Amino acid sequence: MRKLLRGKPVAEAIAAAARKRADILREGGVIPALAVVRVGDNPGDLAYERTILKHAEAAGVEVRTVSLDADVSQDVLSVVICQINEDPSVHGCLLMRPLPAQIDEAAVCELLDPRKDVDGITRASLASVFAGSGDGFAPSTTEACIRTLDFYNVPLDGQRAVVVGRSLVVGKPLSMLLLARNATVTMCHSHTGNLDTITRGADVVVCAVGKPHAFDQRFFSAGQTVLDVGINFDEDGKMCGDVHADSVEPVVAALSPVPGGIGSVTTAVTLDHVVTAAERLAR
Amino acid sequence: MRKLLRGKPVAEAIAAAARKRADILREGGVIPALAVVRVGDNPGDLAYERTILKHAEAAGVEVRTVSLDADVSQDVLSVVICQINEDPSVHGCLLMRPLPAQIDEAAVCELLDPRKDVDGITRASLASVFAGSGDGFAPSTTEACIRTLDFYNVPLDGQRAVVVGRSLVVGKPLSMLLLARNATVTMCHSHTGNLDTITRGADVVVCAVGKPHAFDQRFFSAGQTVLDVGINFDEDGKMCGDVHADSVEPVVAALSPVPGGIGSVTTAVTLDHVVTAAERLAR
Repeated sequence: MRKLLRGKPVAEAIAAAARKRADILREGGVIPALAVVRVGDNPGDLAYERTILKHAEAAGVEVRTVSLDADVSQDVLSVVICQINEDPSVHGCLLMRPLPAQIDEAAVCELLDPRKDVDGITRASLASVFAGSGDGFAPSTTEACIRTLDFYNVPLDGQRAVVVGRSLVVGKPLSMLLLARNATVTMCHSHTGNLDTITRGADVVVCAVGKPHAFDQRFFSAGQTVLDVGINFDEDGKMCGDVHADSVEPVVAALSPVPGGIGSVTTAVTLDHVVTAAERLAR
Repeated sequence: MRKLLRGKPVAEAIAAAARKRADILREGGVIPALAVVRVGDNPGDLAYERTILKHAEAAGVEVRTVSLDADVSQDVLSVVICQINEDPSVHGCLLMRPLPAQIDEAAVCELLDPRKDVDGITRASLASVFAGSGDGFAPSTTEACIRTLDFYNVPLDGQRAVVVGRSLVVGKPLSMLLLARNATVTMCHSHTGNLDTITRGADVVVCAVGKPHAFDQRFFSAGQTVLDVGINFDEDGKMCGDVHADSVEPVVAALSPVPGGIGSVTTAVTLDHVVTAAERLAR
């Protein structure tokens, strides 16, 4: 393999550019601020929250954490979201999901002002991604994929991209972003036959199925760029992706690692979105 | 070729089923009604309006036409849409497009109540198609494709579908409907390389680029089902599709003709949506 597509330099470049724009906003009296809403103490959510807090300053973003009890009611959570909508000093909101069973998650998501929806969870944001209108934010993970490909100069225009996994959080919106960049996009999933033949024929393959080591070298061919969007844990509790890296690395031209790949770009994209939201709201 | 996928029997089956449901609504005092809004006297719009008027009764739908001058203002058109939204005796609205240059078309579309958006022109409807949530209506042409495939027992689950054309009216939403039916979907467009190789490898090919006779037999292989969504006019002013039917018919297993194919199913789907909208609004 020629290239490991590490996320760190991508994230640093995004944060540095966001910081410059945040500084301009600060000169005008606007401090870009993100509200992180967390329900309960899920270790994954806590880790994500720490990551955001750690990287926010580099992007010039202030973070306010809102921590709610695991048994919070729909009404209380709804009030929290509405307060964020109405607070002119907050420009973005990141709602940790999944939410506990007593909460109607879709209903809560829809309450969020799409202008503050920096992780693309509202229908308005998804409609924007689908239409390619550019006014709403794409889910951060999907944009992290595009930013990573751009950073490493992987061409997309006229190239064949295969996305495996069709979730509303990754697969579907990422397919739309790749299409907007003029890639020929194939959307694959659990019903897809001869998946390995399809993935081997692509220039860029994105694995987003959430199954540890589901993709070994049989799925890939020489010259390909592979993005691993899976964040899983193997039988030893060690974080791993959807791609069996040891098997695949010798075959392909470039692969994003897990950890240290797309996931580490996602936070930078979210923070960048906060700065963009602050710019738009300040207009 | 074994099969010509004529639209007429598909449309008749849709209308007959809609009529039964409309009759039940009528017994409850609800008459499913569609408002057709036409700006100016474009011959294509007038022809479409006549088609709707001709087929409405078979589907049990009442049609009210709203005809506006070609130089209508944004304000007047907006008021018309809002009146339709507020009129409890109207359940669906079909707005003929494109609108004249003085009108901000996107803004007018957004005014329409998504519950009455029987041709899937609002962002809310498109978001529903993208999310696969089933609460909004897909653009009628895209659903006409699926209904035609179903009527002729063309399998989709696990099959490879290729959609050529990525408009927000056909290509993108149709890709999502095919995906929802568990097809493996490839979205192709003007930047796609080796398009003929890609289309030849599919089980179902949908041509929706709007170019007369753009697809001849080089693009197809034995056993395929081909839907021709193009409505074009050749050099003699005769209606034709995107597919060069004479060239393609001997090669493939099934082809929808133009005229008499998908286009003739579209009106029935719109009328069916009006009945569904009336059912939902009556709840």
